Amino acid sequence: MTAYERLREACGVIRDLEHTAALLDWDQQTFMPVNAEPDRVAQLTTLAGVIHEKQTDPGFARLLEQAEAECRDCAPDSVQACLIRRLRRDIEKQSKVPVDLVKQLAEAAAQAHSAWAGAREKAQFSLFAPHLERLLDLRRQYAVLFAPYESIYDPLLDNFEEGFTAKQLDILFADLRRNLVPLLRRIIDSQPPAECPKAVYGEKEQLAFINEVLHAVGYDFTRGRQDQSAHPFTNEFGLNDVRITTRIFPEMPLSALLSSIHECGHALYAMGVSRELDRTPLADGASFGFHESQSRLWENLVGRSRAFWEYCFPVFRRYFPEQLKNASAEQIWRAVNHVEATLIRTESDEVTYNLHIMLRYEMEKELLNGTLAVKDAPAAWNAKSMELLGVEPANDAEGILQDIHWSMGEFGYFPTYAIGNLLAAQTWCAAEKQVPDLEAEIAKGNFRPLLDFLRRKVHVLGARFTPAETLRRSLDAEEIKPDCFIRLLEKKYSRICGF
Amino acid sequence: MTAYERLREACGVIRDLEHTAALLDWDQQTFMPVNAEPDRVAQLTTLAGVIHEKQTDPGFARLLEQAEAECRDCAPDSVQACLIRRLRRDIEKQSKVPVDLVKQLAEAAAQAHSAWAGAREKAQFSLFAPHLERLLDLRRQYAVLFAPYESIYDPLLDNFEEGFTAKQLDILFADLRRNLVPLLRRIIDSQPPAECPKAVYGEKEQLAFINEVLHAVGYDFTRGRQDQSAHPFTNEFGLNDVRITTRIFPEMPLSALLSSIHECGHALYAMGVSRELDRTPLADGASFGFHESQSRLWENLVGRSRAFWEYCFPVFRRYFPEQLKNASAEQIWRAVNHVEATLIRTESDEVTYNLHIMLRYEMEKELLNGTLAVKDAPAAWNAKSMELLGVEPANDAEGILQDIHWSMGEFGYFPTYAIGNLLAAQTWCAAEKQVPDLEAEIAKGNFRPLLDFLRRKVHVLGARFTPAETLRRSLDAEEIKPDCFIRLLEKKYSRICGF
Repeated sequence: MTAYERLREACGVIRDLEHTAALLDWDQQTFMPVNAEPDRVAQLTTLAGVIHEKQTDPGFARLLEQAEAECRDCAPDSVQACLIRRLRRDIEKQSKVPVDLVKQLAEAAAQAHSAWAGAREKAQFSLFAPHLERLLDLRRQYAVLFAPYESIYDPLLDNFEEGFTAKQLDILFADLRRNLVPLLRRIIDSQPPAECPKAVYGEKEQLAFINEVLHAVGYDFTRGRQDQSAHPFTNEFGLNDVRITTRIFPEMPLSALLSSIHECGHALYAMGVSRELDRTPLADGASFGFHESQSRLWENLVGRSRAFWEYCFPVFRRYFPEQLKNASAEQIWRAVNHVEATLIRTESDEVTYNLHIMLRYEMEKELLNGTLAVKDAPAAWNAKSMELLGVEPANDAEGILQDIHWSMGEFGYFPTYAIGNLLAAQTWCAAEKQVPDLEAEIAKGNFRPLLDFLRRKVHVLGARFTPAETLRRSLDAEEIKPDCFIRLLEKKYSRICGF
Repeated sequence: MTAYERLREACGVIRDLEHTAALLDWDQQTFMPVNAEPDRVAQLTTLAGVIHEKQTDPGFARLLEQAEAECRDCAPDSVQACLIRRLRRDIEKQSKVPVDLVKQLAEAAAQAHSAWAGAREKAQFSLFAPHLERLLDLRRQYAVLFAPYESIYDPLLDNFEEGFTAKQLDILFADLRRNLVPLLRRIIDSQPPAECPKAVYGEKEQLAFINEVLHAVGYDFTRGRQDQSAHPFTNEFGLNDVRITTRIFPEMPLSALLSSIHECGHALYAMGVSRELDRTPLADGASFGFHESQSRLWENLVGRSRAFWEYCFPVFRRYFPEQLKNASAEQIWRAVNHVEATLIRTESDEVTYNLHIMLRYEMEKELLNGTLAVKDAPAAWNAKSMELLGVEPANDAEGILQDIHWSMGEFGYFPTYAIGNLLAAQTWCAAEKQVPDLEAEIAKGNFRPLLDFLRRKVHVLGARFTPAETLRRSLDAEEIKPDCFIRLLEKKYSRICGF
């Protein structure tokens, strides 16, 4: 066996263990008995330890060196070269961070997490403040290890969007904001009311309805399944096992449907990665932003399109004939596109979502730079909320304490949601050009041409290349831009609002 | 930390990994998408490799030596001494077997398993014969490593019932057979017909009915759950997570009920082990026979008792009022105790079950001793079946090919089912003496006194002691005997058959 073959097998072992940990996590969120928590924590901790042992095994590093020597003449875009590049990058990043700092971060996050949950329950930021202070301090120590950089934000962002910088985000967000804030005002001033008929939509029927739609969209139930959980998520245990979950609200049938289509978008990506990359870290999305682009594309650009409801409304009415007897495709389409500036990110719509992200991005930068003190953060949050969205939280629970991410010590994650939105729009615009009769096929319930396009252009590449290189290869684009995103919104809302 | 503390933590890691593998297996049998098989095989193989690494780590053996030195003055029945004894035994057994033989056995079993499945489908023993030959040869090589012994069967049996020998089994089975064969004839000649009303019993209602019974029996749904699978089983992922499965036949409602009670018996045992033994190999049943004794006790001595149906029939009828409108507790009790000499072990009743086991035990001994050639095995099987049960298989699928065990290279497993039956009866006889109003409480649906007795006497001990020592401590008995078993059967069937 060559060093490369042995290296691949070593990667396979790590990947199998990661998939195993993912199954423990999936089970914990779906079927695990309530009192099994301590046993599950022990298993997850043990597995994390074993994965860490394997990743930091000196034999693994030696194998990588030997594989690099073997690969001097590899084609730079061969799987072999791409895998080696990726492993080298991971090892170099890892080697810069002292084990002690990793431990401190893990411990601080574990403590912060329960403090955050308690603080949110009491809507009292001061209970969480010292933990946030500590996490920011540790994350600054972490970032400094990657100097030089232009912004201290860059090394953190790089963990989610390799190679992307705060400078790029600043330009992108400034552009987006310039267009989005006035657009939001125009929409809110002119949109006619629209809602899904108020009624009870049975859980069983909702699940059957969603199931039919997922089948039509192309979710492969022989390689996945849908269950219920408190928060919808997608989890991958191999290219042949990508599961999604949903959450049913009897009075909001569109919530579960769109959330399922969102998770299905993630799952289609994971299922579509080339089998050449199986059991390697390349069998993944190109970045967090890329992954989010696939879920958002299906949720917003398909699931909230007029064409989709041409197909979907008759299906919807077949499951709920009583509830929908006076409704129409046009009405439901308008309902799922209703815009409202609200306080909570996870409930926000296509237009306001990115504004929520900008708020968090600005907060993170200022907190990390030290230009904003932790004690002043709630007031700053509220002011920014007013400025960007025109609404102000009545308390910290619906303001600065609403998201889990900071309590996990994760800074630099939020922007990937916005990147996902913009990338989704860019991908859609490319599909419009390259897929014949895109909307007409969707209106007929034929999603195959779109899925084939995504498979061929995006999914198959997995994490083989950097995000920038993936963008070039999949969409023939040099950078992420807000143009498509804004254009698609303007087109949709000029039709809805008549401007 | 003392060496013992570090040893316990090392055991904990292995145990966590074993529980993780068990969850992968559970998921495979319950919820896994059909095409995920290759991914799951990779994960299970990887995990088995990691577990093996940890078990054979020289550091682990050194830790054990140090812990032994520390424990020179330990009380011999302390958890510390018991755990050290167990680990020493496992390591000594393991050290006797060359890695190469382990691999050969695993490979031969993997090949034999699919050959067996194919042979059974075609009802053609000759397709399986060379594999059985090979497995017998490897198992002989394995057994020889443990010489000296009285029978080559002993080292194999020891893997399931530590310390138990073929000589003991011979005596036990001769005794049992002397009583059982004439009893079977008498029952068959005199039992009146009895059956559960023929009807369709809906799946949903069956599950709800079983759920209510399991709650009553004492299965803790906060530390377990019941799902459906092709073959019912119990799986344990920690003291706080013990799950069971069942299989519903719409025309045989008593099948799922009794099989669920059987699995529940296993689960109650696993849930009742002392928390002192958590995350060690002692957090297990004392032996395969002991585990089976708990499932059989609940299935046969509770679930097939007249007292149980006093409680259970009204519940049963509440779920199936139409189907059972003309039925009675007495009738259902008689139906679940109907005796018939059939060909298939897994479908056999309380009276004939042990005869199926004796048949297999005799076959195993003769095949291992070489007094029976593999090519002559089907004819020998059929002759023994006629002799013991009075029925003869029409083909190998319903004869020698019916069970999976030999295809896995497991010889010495079958007797533990019979040991379980006898131990269950012995345990019941002890409970009759020590639990006031045992049957009267069961008739009222109060299973708590029985469960408390089992918890206190058997469950809590786990695998802390050898099977023989467990028997002494839990039932104050010196050996496994067939007396209680026979006496209970005679009592029940004299009432049913009127002899």
